[in-house]
Amino acid sequence: MSLYSSLSAEQLRVEYDEVKQSYDDFKARGLELNMARGKPSPAQLDMSLDIFDSVNALNGYKAQDGTDCRNYGNLTGLDECKTIFAQALGVQNDNIIVCGNSSLNIMFDYISQCMTHGAGDKPWMLQGKIKFACPVPGYDRHFGILEHFGIEMLNVPMLADGPDMDKVNELIKDETVKGMILVPKYSNPEGITLSDECVRKIAAMKPAAEDFRVIWDNAYCIHDVNETSDELLNIFEAAKEFSSEDMFIEVTSTSKISFPGAGVSALAASDRNIEMIKKRMTVQTIGNDKLNQLRHAIYFKNLDGLKNHMKKHAASLKPKFDAVIECFTKEFDGTGIAQWKNPNGGYFISLNVLDGTAKRTGELCKDAGVVLTPPGATYPYGKDPEDKNIRIAPSFPTVEELRKAAELLAISARLAACEKLLKR
Amino acid sequence: MSLYSSLSAEQLRVEYDEVKQSYDDFKARGLELNMARGKPSPAQLDMSLDIFDSVNALNGYKAQDGTDCRNYGNLTGLDECKTIFAQALGVQNDNIIVCGNSSLNIMFDYISQCMTHGAGDKPWMLQGKIKFACPVPGYDRHFGILEHFGIEMLNVPMLADGPDMDKVNELIKDETVKGMILVPKYSNPEGITLSDECVRKIAAMKPAAEDFRVIWDNAYCIHDVNETSDELLNIFEAAKEFSSEDMFIEVTSTSKISFPGAGVSALAASDRNIEMIKKRMTVQTIGNDKLNQLRHAIYFKNLDGLKNHMKKHAASLKPKFDAVIECFTKEFDGTGIAQWKNPNGGYFISLNVLDGTAKRTGELCKDAGVVLTPPGATYPYGKDPEDKNIRIAPSFPTVEELRKAAELLAISARLAACEKLLKR
Repeated sequence: MSLYSSLSAEQLRVEYDEVKQSYDDFKARGLELNMARGKPSPAQLDMSLDIFDSVNALNGYKAQDGTDCRNYGNLTGLDECKTIFAQALGVQNDNIIVCGNSSLNIMFDYISQCMTHGAGDKPWMLQGKIKFACPVPGYDRHFGILEHFGIEMLNVPMLADGPDMDKVNELIKDETVKGMILVPKYSNPEGITLSDECVRKIAAMKPAAEDFRVIWDNAYCIHDVNETSDELLNIFEAAKEFSSEDMFIEVTSTSKISFPGAGVSALAASDRNIEMIKKRMTVQTIGNDKLNQLRHAIYFKNLDGLKNHMKKHAASLKPKFDAVIECFTKEFDGTGIAQWKNPNGGYFISLNVLDGTAKRTGELCKDAGVVLTPPGATYPYGKDPEDKNIRIAPSFPTVEELRKAAELLAISARLAACEKLLKR
Repeated sequence: MSLYSSLSAEQLRVEYDEVKQSYDDFKARGLELNMARGKPSPAQLDMSLDIFDSVNALNGYKAQDGTDCRNYGNLTGLDECKTIFAQALGVQNDNIIVCGNSSLNIMFDYISQCMTHGAGDKPWMLQGKIKFACPVPGYDRHFGILEHFGIEMLNVPMLADGPDMDKVNELIKDETVKGMILVPKYSNPEGITLSDECVRKIAAMKPAAEDFRVIWDNAYCIHDVNETSDELLNIFEAAKEFSSEDMFIEVTSTSKISFPGAGVSALAASDRNIEMIKKRMTVQTIGNDKLNQLRHAIYFKNLDGLKNHMKKHAASLKPKFDAVIECFTKEFDGTGIAQWKNPNGGYFISLNVLDGTAKRTGELCKDAGVVLTPPGATYPYGKDPEDKNIRIAPSFPTVEELRKAAELLAISARLAACEKLLKR
């Protein structure tokens, strides 16, 4: 195919007609596919089915230390469950709190606590307008939490190896900037893993706000897809050098390891932050679901258990990622209108289409039966300033379905590009 | 025994010596018992063991509507689980949100939301000092939440049929009084169930604050112990007459039906409040643990299922309640230093000892190996103004252990009374 930017109006019209024909053909097929959310497929969920048998009347319900997991008690989680998360995140058990089924909820709770009680001494809510640095594109649900609490979001571009730290270091000179939120490994949506240098720069930050916090959402810490896997520098190791451990709140979960609806989540933090969070938790709950923690601890045993399990997931996900990448490579070949990354892990492929055509591409897909994450969602307030980023979640559909959906997406992006260029 | 108040100093000395001897004998036995928390016994937990088998690889994990409960989705809970709670609380399914394993957490979240976003339009946190009416004695964890958020607590006496509503109606003329929190059935700790008249008075309240909320913690809605059970008027039915439905947030859970650590909790509220809470939940979580909801729905089926199950609990609890009451009747007979109630349900027995001797009684018990809920805990800020209330949680120990513990408690209370009266 030809570079769209070099086409004459007449050539564009020919291209438009051709692509429009393909699009209409697709539409006529009446697809009904959804690539909107990073939702594991039923086949992936089936990989964890035996988890149910870890705990029952026959196999027992007691933790290693004899705790009857059915009853009240145990605020910070079962030790055997802490061990698994501690190994996965490279911290000590004492720096882990095992929570409920949602790391999103941990982040919401943490920010909520900062609003009412502060990360330091003074509640964020009583400090006037406050702000967060938001590497973009990013995770819509992160932005949702910040928006809910009226925290102004400041876009920071994600570069090839992580957020633009020059920009971040500029922003944090303002003491109303209270934090940053990001997915450091296999980022949502681009699948970028922060370089060691970038992690060190983050650990070295000297924000004007003494109550500045980085929400380190390590959702995909062991979620490799390709055989080549990314390695993320341990943020708490990096922070040691700068004595900045208190600046980081790390979260993760088994949502995309066992069951999204009934997994176990965990928080990792410095001794000081753990104490502060425990103090709140004492009032907030008598304890999280220990039976589910026990199920997970017995089933996965340790980090090796998790990793072996994740190889099965990778085997299921890789053909899906490949199908999308192959399709893009073929369909956008030579057009110069799209860029994408081929991430080594995570749950998403990020596609940048021609500036100003992402929303239109989304509409075209939807009209032909393929639902995408709404373009714009990967930016704060749902506003992609260049209207170009589209997040693709390839996990749920089958490979066959994905091929169709990705092809439709590419055709829609080309059609939207033609439409835009013809209007010039 | 003789009325303590009528004893001469000399007679008191004799009584003291006698009671001291009994106390020392007890102490020498080296008891190790705990009546501090309303914790079901292992025997009670065993009654729900089959719940594990409701959901597994063999029996399935799909809800009635086909939802794969392992995956993401379903914000407000499975319909079949809503039905059970709706029946138990006498509301429509649409007015129920099924949550995680803790109704305490629902209350914390709700108050937290009111602080940051308000119950009406304006966040409570931006309205200066705010206050709650607190019927006393009450539940220490309620007071803990209010204290955590810096909400001033105003004591309101619990009368025989509920809170002193004259006092409440006086307090709520102050628009900084934003709410009231209570257990309306088998109250914690007294086991009082609000009379229909009292419930109607609560429904009829006209608080100055338009964003006034009553947290209706119906923790023991079906938790009868005696054959004679109390009936609580449905608060939402009562509220209809006064169009005050928006004033009430009702919560309950299966913590003391299935498993305290791994049950299911629920919130009931008016359409308007449900909408408001859903709006927050959309940001806070992708959904609660549906597998656990499904387990409960399949196992209990409906309100009849719950009620039949609770009869087994009652059979286990009744001899324990009886043992404590019998012991008190015997040990305090004629002394005139103690009052208690014989509740028809719930989890507690409330004992009022001689004014100014509850803390000392607690110390004496502790020194002899029996841990009670710390005296004072049943009042805001841990301060029982008359230092007389002691909460007894008889569920966890065996009947045999309870007999000993209750006897020691009575002896300790008598000893503390002698000590006090001798100092006159």
